[in-house]
Amino acid sequence: MSLDEERRARVILSLVSEPGDWGFTTLAHELGGRALLEALHSDPDRHDLLSAAAARLSTVDGDATLARAAAAGMRFVIPGDAEWPEQLTALHGSDPLNERGGVPIGLWVRGPLLLDTLTDSVSIVGSRTSSSYGEEIAAGIAGQVAAAGHPVISGAAFGIDYAAHRGAVSMQGHTVAVLACGADRIYPPAHRRMLEHLAAEHAIVSEAPPGAAAQRVRFLARNRLIAALAKGSVIVEAAARSGALNTANWAQRLNRVVMAVPGPVSSGSSEGAHHLIRVGAATLVTGGADVLELVGGSGQHLVSEPRGPSTRRDRMSVKQRQVLDAVPVTCGATAVSIATVAGLGIIEVRKALGRLEDAGLVTQAGGSWVVRPETSAMV
Amino acid sequence: MSLDEERRARVILSLVSEPGDWGFTTLAHELGGRALLEALHSDPDRHDLLSAAAARLSTVDGDATLARAAAAGMRFVIPGDAEWPEQLTALHGSDPLNERGGVPIGLWVRGPLLLDTLTDSVSIVGSRTSSSYGEEIAAGIAGQVAAAGHPVISGAAFGIDYAAHRGAVSMQGHTVAVLACGADRIYPPAHRRMLEHLAAEHAIVSEAPPGAAAQRVRFLARNRLIAALAKGSVIVEAAARSGALNTANWAQRLNRVVMAVPGPVSSGSSEGAHHLIRVGAATLVTGGADVLELVGGSGQHLVSEPRGPSTRRDRMSVKQRQVLDAVPVTCGATAVSIATVAGLGIIEVRKALGRLEDAGLVTQAGGSWVVRPETSAMV
Repeated sequence: MSLDEERRARVILSLVSEPGDWGFTTLAHELGGRALLEALHSDPDRHDLLSAAAARLSTVDGDATLARAAAAGMRFVIPGDAEWPEQLTALHGSDPLNERGGVPIGLWVRGPLLLDTLTDSVSIVGSRTSSSYGEEIAAGIAGQVAAAGHPVISGAAFGIDYAAHRGAVSMQGHTVAVLACGADRIYPPAHRRMLEHLAAEHAIVSEAPPGAAAQRVRFLARNRLIAALAKGSVIVEAAARSGALNTANWAQRLNRVVMAVPGPVSSGSSEGAHHLIRVGAATLVTGGADVLELVGGSGQHLVSEPRGPSTRRDRMSVKQRQVLDAVPVTCGATAVSIATVAGLGIIEVRKALGRLEDAGLVTQAGGSWVVRPETSAMV
Repeated sequence: MSLDEERRARVILSLVSEPGDWGFTTLAHELGGRALLEALHSDPDRHDLLSAAAARLSTVDGDATLARAAAAGMRFVIPGDAEWPEQLTALHGSDPLNERGGVPIGLWVRGPLLLDTLTDSVSIVGSRTSSSYGEEIAAGIAGQVAAAGHPVISGAAFGIDYAAHRGAVSMQGHTVAVLACGADRIYPPAHRRMLEHLAAEHAIVSEAPPGAAAQRVRFLARNRLIAALAKGSVIVEAAARSGALNTANWAQRLNRVVMAVPGPVSSGSSEGAHHLIRVGAATLVTGGADVLELVGGSGQHLVSEPRGPSTRRDRMSVKQRQVLDAVPVTCGATAVSIATVAGLGIIEVRKALGRLEDAGLVTQAGGSWVVRPETSAMV
């Protein structure tokens, strides 16, 4: 009952304010929705912040909006709801970026996936003008982390975002699109089929009310939600000044795991990712396994160091290896001549040759040593 | 005179010991060459280390070797020489790696370049089985750092090493090859032309005496010199377990700057470089400018952050941008309708429209606002 009143107040606040308006979201978080709405009514001129929103109060109808949204299969999730993603609280108190910030007043959601399941989610973002290399990597990482139970969050844009959603869906994992426009809108229009699939099986989320258009500042507000919802963010390809770097910046200030995928240094698409890694803002990841190691529970998904195949040489002493290298493959050589080539004393050479013979690596006939034919393949 | 005696002693030590034998180089550094040689003669059985070398004393002739080397255009540079690269002293006291380590007893050098000019040198190493991508990057970096006055050190091997020497030479910079075999040998034989050019114009260096063969452990000893001579090491392409990673490992223990160039994550050739960056052992570099920033004097070669072109939008307030985004391009709209689209109060919208009009970005006729045709191109 009280939660419903709070929800009705927050629907109105959502309609009269701009997504991620830092001053406004901060007031809503500190006062609560009802108290802030009361302040708008009772003392609209107290602050610029309030007067702009108060001036719009008469133009909106919260209950009608909520009813229409419900009819369109949307819900308005607010703090206090069982579904509310608590990780967004981290946005309170963090300084604004481009004047955007704060805990959202509420989230408009379309789709069956509950937002409290996103605790271990991974956001995967990147350039709209991505390369096929970037898209393949993004889809691969998305598929692997989604299959391991980590929902994939992205922004439904062209390029990397689309590849990320697609990769998660292809592995029967969950994926969530966070939009800069209303969650009821299809943006970009070319992604209608994917967005409708997400609305039917997963979730589409927006801080902006139904019907809101995708404006540039709303993308900046949206990027903070992608960063804040996820446990870690992966930047796949990002040119300088791309929105993905804005997401990375948010993820870093929120102490989330920031990861970036390298690419050819000759490709401008990877410039942003390389910069993040170079300055230590992001950890280099080369695939889903690296990402799982960083976002998984401690010790849950350990990545083994890349290693070549181990060989019998690994189990030899340095001297034995030196002697083995000095034994000829074709014409036999005496131990003395091997000692000269190896640059070792004759006694240690004889000892090493004995060990190598026991191991079946070299053989001798009448004091003349050769490497056994199969040795080079083995070592 | 005393230096010449020390040199004669060290030539003999160089002939009876293995390059980079940690115990032996440590003794030579601590006792000095003459004292160690005396100990070999007087008390050969004191230690395994000494007995093996002592056993070989009768088989070598230091003076003859030195004379033959001089006739072949080679010199033996030892600590105390004006040319001695003091940065190698860092090798003393550092733990061995694969039983190799320590300050070399001396360096056999062929070529006119003096080793004391390598203080600010950069080593560039990588895979023998490199990609054309890696070779192009290596040559590019080598050319840029060599042209800026930093000699390029590498190992004359196929692939990245060759590209590094070539890049430095092509930009009229200096370059030094450190070999695992004797500095008089042409290894690999396919690089004869390049090695002869280096011997004529630059320098070929080896810890192993003239005539010594390239053995596997000698590559490990050689890699430590490449790392120790240079101010920083760049790993361009390195598969798991490559020799370049051994160089990187040495550079790291010696507190040199370790740099690695990323590549496509789908390429096994970049696996080692990515691992070094990922675990924080190397800084990601994307080209010569990044390398110069890290090895140059403080503030000498600063790299600017990658940035897109700055636009007039950058100088607008967030609200002005929001309003501009809400002004239609074709059919005009009233300020009230723009306020609704922008989600802002009418007063601030009117104010912003005035500013945008002053800036020549929007225009109105009879209260109907449109974006000026040239605006979208400008912002």
